[in-house]
Order: sequence, then structure tokens, then C-alpha cells
Amino acid sequence: MRTQVGIIGAGPAGLMLSHLLHLQGIESIIIECRSREDIEGTIRAGLLEQGTVDLMKATGVADRMMREGHFHEGIELRYNGKGHRINLYELTGGKKVTVYAQHEVIKDLIAARLNAGGEMIFNVGDVSLHDLDTSAPKIRFRKDKDGELQEITCDYIAGCDGFHGPSRPSIPSSIRKEYQKIYPFGWLGILTEAPPSAPELIYAYHERGFALLSTRSPEIQRLYIQVDPNDHISNWSDDRIWEELHARLATRDGWKLIDGPIIQKNIVAMRSFVCDPMQYGRLFLAGDAAHIVPPTGAKGLNLAMADVQVLARALDAFYTSGDAEPLMRYSETCLRRVWKAERFSWYMTSMLHRHHDYTPFEHQIQLAELDYVTSSRAGSTSLAENYVGLPMEWKEKETVATLR
Amino acid sequence: MRTQVGIIGAGPAGLMLSHLLHLQGIESIIIECRSREDIEGTIRAGLLEQGTVDLMKATGVADRMMREGHFHEGIELRYNGKGHRINLYELTGGKKVTVYAQHEVIKDLIAARLNAGGEMIFNVGDVSLHDLDTSAPKIRFRKDKDGELQEITCDYIAGCDGFHGPSRPSIPSSIRKEYQKIYPFGWLGILTEAPPSAPELIYAYHERGFALLSTRSPEIQRLYIQVDPNDHISNWSDDRIWEELHARLATRDGWKLIDGPIIQKNIVAMRSFVCDPMQYGRLFLAGDAAHIVPPTGAKGLNLAMADVQVLARALDAFYTSGDAEPLMRYSETCLRRVWKAERFSWYMTSMLHRHHDYTPFEHQIQLAELDYVTSSRAGSTSLAENYVGLPMEWKEKETVATLR
Repeated sequence: MRTQVGIIGAGPAGLMLSHLLHLQGIESIIIECRSREDIEGTIRAGLLEQGTVDLMKATGVADRMMREGHFHEGIELRYNGKGHRINLYELTGGKKVTVYAQHEVIKDLIAARLNAGGEMIFNVGDVSLHDLDTSAPKIRFRKDKDGELQEITCDYIAGCDGFHGPSRPSIPSSIRKEYQKIYPFGWLGILTEAPPSAPELIYAYHERGFALLSTRSPEIQRLYIQVDPNDHISNWSDDRIWEELHARLATRDGWKLIDGPIIQKNIVAMRSFVCDPMQYGRLFLAGDAAHIVPPTGAKGLNLAMADVQVLARALDAFYTSGDAEPLMRYSETCLRRVWKAERFSWYMTSMLHRHHDYTPFEHQIQLAELDYVTSSRAGSTSLAENYVGLPMEWKEKETVATLR
Repeated sequence: MRTQVGIIGAGPAGLMLSHLLHLQGIESIIIECRSREDIEGTIRAGLLEQGTVDLMKATGVADRMMREGHFHEGIELRYNGKGHRINLYELTGGKKVTVYAQHEVIKDLIAARLNAGGEMIFNVGDVSLHDLDTSAPKIRFRKDKDGELQEITCDYIAGCDGFHGPSRPSIPSSIRKEYQKIYPFGWLGILTEAPPSAPELIYAYHERGFALLSTRSPEIQRLYIQVDPNDHISNWSDDRIWEELHARLATRDGWKLIDGPIIQKNIVAMRSFVCDPMQYGRLFLAGDAAHIVPPTGAKGLNLAMADVQVLARALDAFYTSGDAEPLMRYSETCLRRVWKAERFSWYMTSMLHRHHDYTPFEHQIQLAELDYVTSSRAGSTSLAENYVGLPMEWKEKETVATLR
């Protein structure tokens, strides 16, 4: 097989890249280890930045999202038994976030690719990358997990295969620098059959630990509590989970958290991770293959969407005018924005979780940060502009020629 | 002796408090362990917030400062060999900072107190506080260090006697909660006879460590470099100091640091400290007696001025209308602003110093913070509003009744 861009992974990054390339008249083939049913059926949270929503609208894959998504103009930070609303819409000059699950985004993108005759090969096995430093890089894989060996010869390969995929390790380790932080926090997440307790997301800091209230639909709510990342879900009865949620989300003004039957529960660990560079020869990493953020800033999917926009534009420049410069600068362009999102995700995580290793001084600084960010317009604006998503093309506000 | 308010310490806090009380028709006596010559002659840096300048102007002690002070509308953050100006004036709607040394403020306040016939007793010894939980608290001391024992009976006592003074320890330790952070950084400071290298302050982050360039006068400059707090000044020849300053402040555009003879050099350690509460019975702490900040945010003197403004108003309410409520709430009122200044000082210190215990990930987050704060208007505004000083009366921007 031959294609212009071989894409490994049918997550949001790979699917959106293939979609963007198609709109630019560039061919691609996606291969994916899992089955279509599996990736469409795995329930994943999703909070879309304004830029992600704009991209989906501009490229014709937003219809269902606009009907079924929930548009939020604010979030609440809650601590010391009191809620403080961050008015995202007002502070950012009219931007919002959209609650629309990641697997729904995936369904819409797969449908769009199929409509356009896009080639997607699911359920492959033994994926490997070859000849990345030549002008004809290749992807090898087996059909149906253990079927015959296939090869796609490409002009370029996009590694959109997540944190555990084979793309990143294909960059020689002597070139690759990896940055990582493992947090001493886990998130115990539940889905519950209950009506919404609040119209917007609530991020709560409590001395018992962080809690997050979010809504999936009028009937299903998604809530999280900070737990030890090594804890086991079997230690958490439904009653114990509700007890913690009630305690951590309690206010002094009688706000009521509405319980319901818990229909799913699990514990996930939290990490930050960045691979630098995000490219090698004719391989380009995008999304979780290159970087991971803790979920507190809700940036994972949005970073993937930002990466593939940069990559699609760079490939367009190459195919339309032979200009390889944007491709050469792909990693540099992405990483500047990636590190800002890493910073914000780390900041939100640090500010909102209970740190058992903090000194009393550090706990007070954390409370002062919450007090500052909820009471200063500049502080709130800073949080808001990061939460709705920094501009895709980040420009410097002002750089002085250093003063003589 | 008898007075309404006994003030321990003739630093900026004690002197300004006595001055404010005098303007409100309230008597006070200041006692001070050091001699007048000593406190007026000890050279101390000084960077005055807009609110401190406004207070000095409003109370008639600003004439010399307005003539001799230097008014700065911006500061520069420098890293990766490039300068980024934070336009304080524009970002805060017209606020500035004023470079005017602390010992000059002290001279002006002593002169004002003497003009008004204020009573100041210098060079005292053996200061102790008594009967703080009665309506007649007392200060005892010896004249001329080891002279006869004196006693001042007061309505109230203001402990403005710095970190090592006897006031804070007079609050029973069972009541007092102390928060502290010792930084693994020291500042090696120099005074040099050289013309200014730049018109505004430059805060530089460099992998060799922090450096700060500031100006004292057209002839004398003040510079600092981050060193190990346990290092000895004898290890630092003038040549070695200049070598570090040149390396850390270097830019890629040929900016030139101007050397000169070093006329003073020393190393100071850095700490953050807060005492809660700042009051007990009829004793009220103000300034360094209650809290210490690292010098990076230039907040020390300004926090002292903010405290005594709150205290003077509270005493005025008591003496004019018998309302003791503001006095009862003194500590609470001050501490909310104090913690914000502690947060900012900790933030500036963390962002600008080289942390030898940081992981590679944490170093990148630090660089991302510098990138964000210098390239986002909201980020720059947040830094600027803290740098020029948060409002004296800090109000909440918006608190929602938590959503039902």
C-alpha cells in the first residue's frame, strides 16, 4: 500500500488529522489496534475548548455536538464552604467550553471519514515503523491482529497512537528527551444516575481532598474525588464515595448534592509527560503520543486537536508549495503551546488537591492562591483564558529590545 | 509615664503609626533599642508601592521622596538572554513604584514626629511587655540600655519591633500559630559606584541563578545574585561577583552591564514567615514583627505600612466612637492581604530562582511560567497589580451564592 500520510491511531488526533488532510486534498490511511466498536463504545469524558469547537465547526463535523453538547459560560471554584464563579464568557470576551464526550467526537469523525471514503483499518496488530529518516518511511502491521503482514509506504507518518503506542519509542532515545511528573493523587471517578446538582462544573478544594462535579446529561452525572493513586476501587463502597462527595462539596448556604445509583466507578492515576522533540525524520507525534496532562485542566483532547492543526497546515505548505520549513518547525511550534498547557494543568492540579506533604506555610499559600484567583479580575482572567484555551497561534504580547 | 498607644520600634511601621495617630489626635510614645543615628544610617533598599506613596503624600511626609525618589513605570523580566518589559503603569491603570530607600523614609518620618513634638525614646534596653490582657497594658524598658527601669502605661501597645523583637513572643505560644519557609537561596548584594546600566529594575532568571539589577542613584547601583545562603562573602572576590552578574544578565542583543568599584557587599538569607493572630489582648503586631517576606517581591516595608493604616483606623474608631469592632478584627483584616503578599513573594521567588532540587519537568514548568507571564496580558496584569500593591481594602470581585 502507498499513501501520502500514514496515520497510526484512530483517536481524536489521528481522526481529525485525516479529516483535515482530506479537506486539503492530501491522502491518508489510518491504522488502529482496537476495533471500531471498542473505540466508539469506551466512555470518556470530554470538555472542548473554544478553539476545538471552532475547528469542528469550520470543518463540518460539529452538527451533533451543537445539538447535544452542553455549553458552559462559567465554572465554579469552591473552598472553605463557599463557591466562587469564574465567568469564562465575560472574562475572555465571549468564549465558552463545551461538554461533549470524547467518544462522541470520535463517532462523528469516523462517520465523516467514512462518508468521504476515507481508509481506516481497525483491529490491526504488531505495528512497527521503519525508514523514518528516509523519504519513504513505512508502517508495518498485521491485519486482524495476527493476520498477514502488511506495509504502507508513506511520505510522512503521524504517530497519533497515544502514550503506550509504538511511535514515540521509534524516535532514537539518544535524541528524545522525556519530562515527567507522577502525582501522588488518583481520581476516583463515578457515573451516577441522578439529575444535575449544578448547571456548571464545580472544582472543590477541601482538606479531605479535591472533588469535581460535572454533568454528562440530564440523567447521568460524572463526579470525581481525589484518592491515593494506589488505592483499590474495592475499598470504596458506594456509601463511602457519597459520604466523601457530600463532605467535600458541602457549602455553608445549604446547597444540596443529589445522589443516585452509581453505575460505574474506577480509579485513575495522574501524570504529566512531555516528549521533546515531537518529530524525527518523517515521523511526527501528536496528542498523547507526545504529551500527557493530568485531567484537572481538561486539556488532553484539546492539545491533540491543536497539534494536528499545526501538522495539517505544515503538510499543506509542503504539498502545495514545497515549503518544508513549517514541518521542520512542527515540534517547536507545538511545544511552546504544549508547555503552557502543561503549566496550567500542573497549576490547577496543585491549587485544587490536598497535598499531604505540604507544610502549614504551603497550605496557607495554596489558600491564598485560591483567594487571589477568585477575587482579582486579572487572576480570574488568567485562569479563564487558559481554561477556554490559549490561542492556537500564540504571539508575544510585547518584547522589549532590552534597555540600553 | 502614660500614653494612649505605646509603640515598640522606630522602623517604618512604628514611625508611620505614630504619625497617623498624631494626625487623628491620638497620643503615642515610641521606644527604640537602637540609636537614631544608627537607624537613620543603616543603608536599606526601598521600593514603595503606589499605596505607600499615596499614604505618605496624604499625610504630608512625601516632599523629599517626590524630589529624590525614582518613579518606575515598568520592570523587566529577563530569561533565555531576552528582556520582557512588564508595563506596570499601563497594566494597572496608571500605578507606579517608587525607588526610595527605607532609611530615607525613616529620616522623613522621624523629622515629622520631631516637628510635631512627638515623643521618641531611642537607645533603650531590656524591653518587656506586661498586663496585655488587661485594660492597662505596660511597657518596661531601661533608658540608655542599662539605665533605670521605666514603665509606660498604655491603652494599647503596638509591637513594631521587627522579627527579633520582644512583642511577638509576648503572645502566649498556645495562641500563636507560626508559619514559616526557609528558602535554599541567599542574596549576595553589592553597592557599586557606577552609572545605571538600565533605567528600570531587571529581574533575571538564569540557569546559574537569579540576578537583580536596580538603581540607587545616578552614581550608585545596587545589584544582587542568588548564592547558597550558607556561603561566605569572603569566597566572593569582586571579580567573581562581576563575572556572575555579567553571565546572568547577558542578552543576545549586546546590552552592556556597566561595572564599577564595589563599595559594599554582603549575603542575606531568605525566609517567609507569618504569625497568626497578629494581636493578643491589647497588643497589636505590625510589620516584620508579624510577618517576613523574601525580598523578591519588594513587599516588606509596604506590608508594614498597610498594617499600621488598618491599626490607625481601628484605633480611631475606638477613640472617636467607642467602636472596638475594627480592633477586634485587626488581625483578620491584615492577614488576608498579608497572605496575598506572601503568596506573591513566594511566587516571584520560585519563578526567578534556580532550584537545584527541581526535576527537569519542574524546570520546564518554571520556563513556561516565565513565557506565560511575559506573553499573556492577563498574566502580566496579574504580576503588575501585585507588584504595585493590591488595594488596601481588598474586596471580592464576585461571590456567587452557590448554584442550586
